[in-house]
Amino acid sequence: MRAWERCPPLRLLPREAAIEVLDQRALPFSERRLRLDSVEACIAAIREMAVRGAPLIGLVGAAGMAIAASRDPADAALREAAAGLAASRPTAVNLQWGIDRMRGALLSRPAGERAEAAWREALSLEAAEYRCCEQIGEHGLGLLQEAADSAAARSRGRLNILTHCNAGWLATGAWGTALAPLYRALEAGIPLHVWVDETRPRNQGARLTAWELAEAGIPHTLIVDSAAGQLMRQGEVDLCLVGSDRTTRTGDVCNKVGTYQKALAARDNGLPFYVALPLSTIDWSLDDGLRGIPIEARDAEEILWLDGLGTGGDTGRLRHAPPGCTALNLAFDVTPARLVSALVCEHGVVPASAAGLAPLRALAAGAGGGL
Amino acid sequence: MRAWERCPPLRLLPREAAIEVLDQRALPFSERRLRLDSVEACIAAIREMAVRGAPLIGLVGAAGMAIAASRDPADAALREAAAGLAASRPTAVNLQWGIDRMRGALLSRPAGERAEAAWREALSLEAAEYRCCEQIGEHGLGLLQEAADSAAARSRGRLNILTHCNAGWLATGAWGTALAPLYRALEAGIPLHVWVDETRPRNQGARLTAWELAEAGIPHTLIVDSAAGQLMRQGEVDLCLVGSDRTTRTGDVCNKVGTYQKALAARDNGLPFYVALPLSTIDWSLDDGLRGIPIEARDAEEILWLDGLGTGGDTGRLRHAPPGCTALNLAFDVTPARLVSALVCEHGVVPASAAGLAPLRALAAGAGGGL
Repeated sequence: MRAWERCPPLRLLPREAAIEVLDQRALPFSERRLRLDSVEACIAAIREMAVRGAPLIGLVGAAGMAIAASRDPADAALREAAAGLAASRPTAVNLQWGIDRMRGALLSRPAGERAEAAWREALSLEAAEYRCCEQIGEHGLGLLQEAADSAAARSRGRLNILTHCNAGWLATGAWGTALAPLYRALEAGIPLHVWVDETRPRNQGARLTAWELAEAGIPHTLIVDSAAGQLMRQGEVDLCLVGSDRTTRTGDVCNKVGTYQKALAARDNGLPFYVALPLSTIDWSLDDGLRGIPIEARDAEEILWLDGLGTGGDTGRLRHAPPGCTALNLAFDVTPARLVSALVCEHGVVPASAAGLAPLRALAAGAGGGL
Repeated sequence: MRAWERCPPLRLLPREAAIEVLDQRALPFSERRLRLDSVEACIAAIREMAVRGAPLIGLVGAAGMAIAASRDPADAALREAAAGLAASRPTAVNLQWGIDRMRGALLSRPAGERAEAAWREALSLEAAEYRCCEQIGEHGLGLLQEAADSAAARSRGRLNILTHCNAGWLATGAWGTALAPLYRALEAGIPLHVWVDETRPRNQGARLTAWELAEAGIPHTLIVDSAAGQLMRQGEVDLCLVGSDRTTRTGDVCNKVGTYQKALAARDNGLPFYVALPLSTIDWSLDDGLRGIPIEARDAEEILWLDGLGTGGDTGRLRHAPPGCTALNLAFDVTPARLVSALVCEHGVVPASAAGLAPLRALAAGAGGGL
């Protein structure tokens, strides 16, 4: 049984017009599950990051529309639900994409058919997301196999991969995006080791990626976000593999803050920097990620306070900055396409450029992609 | 009264054969002072980072030798004290430099004169350190004035400086190295704002730099280490200014881990990346920082556990990584000279290169430099 089958981040419950999610704020110390049976509860779960990861919040957004349709299938209610869900997180494009798709599918039907159609559609999106991530894993596996055959990795006896934040099965429901190739590589018997960036300020690397890799049995070591560059200089990294929250049609990648600095370090050390993403992450309207993508500034409290487990086993909060200190909490950054070695999507490995992505646009418009 | 006069990080007490230090582990929540009257206490204070910052631990190392000479001025005792003090932190060169200088000055004298000579020498080193930092501030001020006159800074109405870790008066005793020019600029009336990198894992930015700048009245904002790159891309940084723990004769800079990633981001955005340092930080025996400078790997616990103040006002520890998670804690990294715009030392602003530094070698050998 794969780790995400034992502990699914999202379960759709059509008969109960509800969903069940793993509360990711409680990880890695507790596998608490939340039952969400209203649009408001879905919005709160997304906003407070009980669920997070662009594809997963896309699925929760879609499921939120199905819950809305079960409660009140009238046009006005669905439009209100869509607007509320879409406003819960500003940066990731998948959320808007999932909601739009649901809204389109529902508003074109008579009100009496909407609830059933909505759950069918949500289940179909979930299945598509699964296939999409599985395919990303398959295409990424080729890159890992190639890197594992390099002289450095062979002499070390393991392939050293650096990742930032969490783009694993906790972020997508199954497999993951950036981590999907690692799970394929594990099953293929490639000896792996992962450098896990802590990923301040919400520590998704320490809390989620380290936990998720441990659950799956992949060796890993936690580092602070600042250490990646020195490890690369010391020859301890073979490649970087991260996810994307939004990607421009020109290949600029908006991902968790810190990704750009990793890409710079990879370039300076001649290492591949790969970004794994479902096509749904691509915003075909944007040419320039720096100018076009709004960067979410989250609450400064996330920097000033740390949540964790105390020495006595109780959860708590601590601060380390002086009283009165102000902080700016940019949640994402934009890595320009020129620093990205390749994009790994469900249709294959493509250059991070307008020319590389253009052929995929027709595929993205079709029904084949995940969220 | 300047902030460091109100709250000196180090006070030499020759009559008591002791020193008093500000316990920097208790900042920013408490101004606890420690009295150290044995070599062992000095070693512990350096190793456990009650005192930190390359110049300050150099002064404490020298003061430790004076305490040793007061206790037992015999050759063997002094040699033992020197070895113990030198082993307390491995990376910074100032510590070794201060100890060597004391040992040389003491062993050449009759045992009966050593205690008095030792304190005289320690006081003289402290005074030299003060002058050295004051001069770094003066030379760096020119760079800040130039940057403040740029179109970007003028249109914004303030000069935005990014710094990493703590290279202020807490690290040197007075003025600081990287922060000395800021204190001069403040007195010169230049409108300033500092982006303070949190500086994981020990959070010297959040704990020390934010506190130190607040004490001196310089506006600042705390950010996570990963955010600097995005801020630079958004045009919110005019220049970077950091310190150095060890510098090669070719201009490679070993400083707090994360410095290299900042330098890469500055280069990618066409921003100046300055390193402020006393000449005593230069290791004239090294050509290649990456190969030559040992990088201290500190206890993984520093990453896994965070010390801070709880909501109830009590200090505590929390962890966020899963039980059993391993971590690698590299404390420093090496920024190659090619990424350093200039070095700011007590003799002026010089290129980060063998040619730029060579003329200073004779000055470094003299008595003029600080620790």
